[in-house]
Amino acid sequence: MQKTSKIDYKKELETASKGMIMIHDPQLLIKLIVRMIVNKLDIKHAGMILEDPKKDSYVLTISRGQHGYKIPAGFARFEKNNPIIKLFTEKDYKSLRINKNGVIAQDINRMIWQESVIANGNGNGNGATKLLHEVADQMRIHNIVACVPGLYRDKLLAVLMLGEKNDGSKFDDDELDFFAALAHDVAMAIRNAQLFENLQREADKNRDLFLRTVIVLGSTIEAKDKYTHGHSRRVTDYSIAIARQMNQNGTGHFSEEFMNQLYISGMLHDIGKIGVPEAILNNEGKLTAEEFDIMRSHTVYGVEILKPLSELEDSLDGVKYHHERYDGKGYPEGLKGEDIPIIAAVIAVADAFDAMTTDRPYRKGLTHDQGIKEIDKHSGDQFHPLTAQAMIELFNAGKLLG
Amino acid sequence: MQKTSKIDYKKELETASKGMIMIHDPQLLIKLIVRMIVNKLDIKHAGMILEDPKKDSYVLTISRGQHGYKIPAGFARFEKNNPIIKLFTEKDYKSLRINKNGVIAQDINRMIWQESVIANGNGNGNGATKLLHEVADQMRIHNIVACVPGLYRDKLLAVLMLGEKNDGSKFDDDELDFFAALAHDVAMAIRNAQLFENLQREADKNRDLFLRTVIVLGSTIEAKDKYTHGHSRRVTDYSIAIARQMNQNGTGHFSEEFMNQLYISGMLHDIGKIGVPEAILNNEGKLTAEEFDIMRSHTVYGVEILKPLSELEDSLDGVKYHHERYDGKGYPEGLKGEDIPIIAAVIAVADAFDAMTTDRPYRKGLTHDQGIKEIDKHSGDQFHPLTAQAMIELFNAGKLLG
Repeated sequence: MQKTSKIDYKKELETASKGMIMIHDPQLLIKLIVRMIVNKLDIKHAGMILEDPKKDSYVLTISRGQHGYKIPAGFARFEKNNPIIKLFTEKDYKSLRINKNGVIAQDINRMIWQESVIANGNGNGNGATKLLHEVADQMRIHNIVACVPGLYRDKLLAVLMLGEKNDGSKFDDDELDFFAALAHDVAMAIRNAQLFENLQREADKNRDLFLRTVIVLGSTIEAKDKYTHGHSRRVTDYSIAIARQMNQNGTGHFSEEFMNQLYISGMLHDIGKIGVPEAILNNEGKLTAEEFDIMRSHTVYGVEILKPLSELEDSLDGVKYHHERYDGKGYPEGLKGEDIPIIAAVIAVADAFDAMTTDRPYRKGLTHDQGIKEIDKHSGDQFHPLTAQAMIELFNAGKLLG
Repeated sequence: MQKTSKIDYKKELETASKGMIMIHDPQLLIKLIVRMIVNKLDIKHAGMILEDPKKDSYVLTISRGQHGYKIPAGFARFEKNNPIIKLFTEKDYKSLRINKNGVIAQDINRMIWQESVIANGNGNGNGATKLLHEVADQMRIHNIVACVPGLYRDKLLAVLMLGEKNDGSKFDDDELDFFAALAHDVAMAIRNAQLFENLQREADKNRDLFLRTVIVLGSTIEAKDKYTHGHSRRVTDYSIAIARQMNQNGTGHFSEEFMNQLYISGMLHDIGKIGVPEAILNNEGKLTAEEFDIMRSHTVYGVEILKPLSELEDSLDGVKYHHERYDGKGYPEGLKGEDIPIIAAVIAVADAFDAMTTDRPYRKGLTHDQGIKEIDKHSGDQFHPLTAQAMIELFNAGKLLG
């Protein structure tokens, strides 16, 4: 019966340690494993120290005991020169590890005793003897009787620390082998999780850099067109709010990816103005027909500029078609109704609303209230009815913040 | 002896399958495992089919036999409706899997025989019987006697396909259990590798998007400043070449990260010109002192624009200080000698060379030969001697392509 239960816990621990590899925060599973060791085995307490690559040291991650026994919490960090760490990492001390899978307090004490017999009172002995004394001290301090290294490719990633068995017997080689396999699995899970974490961090960092570069790119046009300070940001905020509202009222089914593209498109919808001469861009009077044509070309020119980002297809549609009108009287292509990409229809209403409601040097902007009345009035001719409706709903709900 | 060798191969296979988790292209390790199965066990051949998430089907990844035995290569892809796949994926057929860890041809044949006895010639029987027939056919076609599913969280990720044992005996439950554990490890390794691959692809994609957005950002100034078409790109190319040359001739020790920052800085060094009025930027005559000041402000203004990317510290230094001179007579801060960040000193010489050697509407550009003479002449007053030297070396080696 005892035998069977022993096999069972081994199986359980093995399964747990295997599944661990798929948990990319292994701390939780290490916790479960240490708890399992303590609960299923007749061990008074157990703990695990893990490598902290950033600090170049080792940290007591978890310590757990059955009856109040616990590794003192004060000794949370093990520097590289901690004797237990040195024992497992420095080649010079390899010979001291009697069992290749760990060290046992009894063995250490026996070795110290033998050394002292051989040395016969010859002082403190060599470095190895000194280390043995220190390891014995450390094990006493931490109230443990065995340490099992978790190695991955000869690198020490973790140390499993085991307290006394309840029956007082010594850990045998079989048990140490088993714990070593366990510690090795833990080490691999840790390394795996670290790699994941690094890669995830890199992906996030690059995404963030990309988005901030988009913001910078959007801001360049505002450096040129003085009357549009904050315009791109506000249009983007309105656009996202409109699309969310359409998702909520059931008239839209926009994915997260669409929202991302909408964000980029909103930030960059006027980027083509970078190619419009300042004399036209900042003209406060009437433009000639020719000048109007140049002004209008900012839609097509924007797409030209953004060509290197051609996979942002939806975003480019927003840049190109945000001046199309639902009745087909817009530009650059005179697209009509549902032929206008919805991303452009969303930006169109946001863009018009912001243009109407902000001050220009030559005229005062409308109030939001007046602006919304205009949107309502031109729903179905200038604006897509559903995007206009969403914007009106947002305003009525007091959620239209610009 | 036989027993011992059996334990050894199990141990070997287990170790291999564990290590697999750290190989993020598991194909290689699957290959090793299949080879090991064939070589160490008395099995005529073995193969592994893997899920292809993109195609929503399964692919024969590896097939290997001892004595010319091989699963026919023509059957490389298993669609979702392949009877073997259906047997392991569709709930309806769960009852057909006698041993939870796989199916054995002999069992299938026995079940078919029993069914036909019960049905007593009642036509083709029910769906289950039909599937059994199809599975039997498939196993015959692929010349295998056992299939073991590799499941991860109830999802079929792989199927281990085993040919006959050389002694003709049937696989026992113990063996199937072992192979199932192996297939499970493989499945986990595959899932792990897929997650890694996806994450790596995402990181790469985001990095690429970022860099292309930098290129777009750099191109905006060329949309405005008509005389500088391709200038940023050429300055970047020169700069990278200069830094590489300095690494080669031992005067520089630039990391890959520095090279990345240099690339970005080169592409964006003139971005601040976006804030300089076109009238000044495109002025072909003499500028007034005041206009000169505005023109010069492009260095500081560039950093202002790029503030959201402040972690690109070296790049920003290049933008800000690429008009400093080695003798301290440059702008914006009049930094001198080694106080000028080296990234700016690299860009400075590349920038000056490109400016000299390209045509402007109001003057013809110098030849490369004349340009290099100018660089040489002003090494130590305008230019950092080492960056000038590297550029001259590149020219002399015929490696200065712009």
